[in-house]
Amino acid sequence: MLSPSLEDYLEEIYRFHANLGVVRVTDISNKLNVSMPSVSKAMRKLNLLGYITYQKYGHICLTAKGIETGKFLVRRNQILQEFLVMLRTNCNIAAEAEAIEHYLSNSTIEAIQSFVVFMRKNPDTYQQLYTFLEERQSTDL
Amino acid sequence: MLSPSLEDYLEEIYRFHANLGVVRVTDISNKLNVSMPSVSKAMRKLNLLGYITYQKYGHICLTAKGIETGKFLVRRNQILQEFLVMLRTNCNIAAEAEAIEHYLSNSTIEAIQSFVVFMRKNPDTYQQLYTFLEERQSTDL
Repeated sequence: MLSPSLEDYLEEIYRFHANLGVVRVTDISNKLNVSMPSVSKAMRKLNLLGYITYQKYGHICLTAKGIETGKFLVRRNQILQEFLVMLRTNCNIAAEAEAIEHYLSNSTIEAIQSFVVFMRKNPDTYQQLYTFLEERQSTDL
Repeated sequence: MLSPSLEDYLEEIYRFHANLGVVRVTDISNKLNVSMPSVSKAMRKLNLLGYITYQKYGHICLTAKGIETGKFLVRRNQILQEFLVMLRTNCNIAAEAEAIEHYLSNSTIEAIQSFVVFMRKNPDTYQQLYTFLEERQSTDL
């Protein structure tokens, strides 16, 4: 099982891979605001675990296992962000999804996704929930 | 702000306080399965931060601040457990609530509580969500 830190690295590598097709150690260092030696250390671990391979000029290549896991990690983050938006919470959505994603079981992630899908399929129900959440929030103020 | 570990200690101290009226260092050590020196170290920190005071015979007494925070921590845990049960997730509910509770903002906790209250007030809606969650789970099998 990957540590929260390695999950964050792999998630970001997958984003670069999916959006730009190219992933370099410098991109990850800049994006995550982490020093180059720290990124290199993490890349060695991900390489040893079979998620990535190194290419020339500091390019990183995802293995099939890396693509599968990276895709799951990005999807998990999206589900949690969508869920938090749906709940109308006044937090930093990206930061909070990032913080909790490592500690939720796959079963809970799937359940949360089902909840999101249910609300999307039942807009009238979501409207009721939305109104209820807004009213409760204004009572708390 | 308390660390996740100190939050766990304070939460457990409050449970003993609320259920038995008496809290001893040995109770906390046994309940959390942590060595006595580790508990003593945590208690010194909680004492310095103004959450507890020490009494004779290893008894721990919560200050007003400790009672307020402990009550909040126990309530937060209950809300999350109830939410996870409602989502029909197949995880260790207690362990998962324990793991994520430290990383959720108060705003999200309040929103999750509002969701739980909404579903309790609208049993027909919850029945629809319940059926949807069950169907999605059986599709995943």
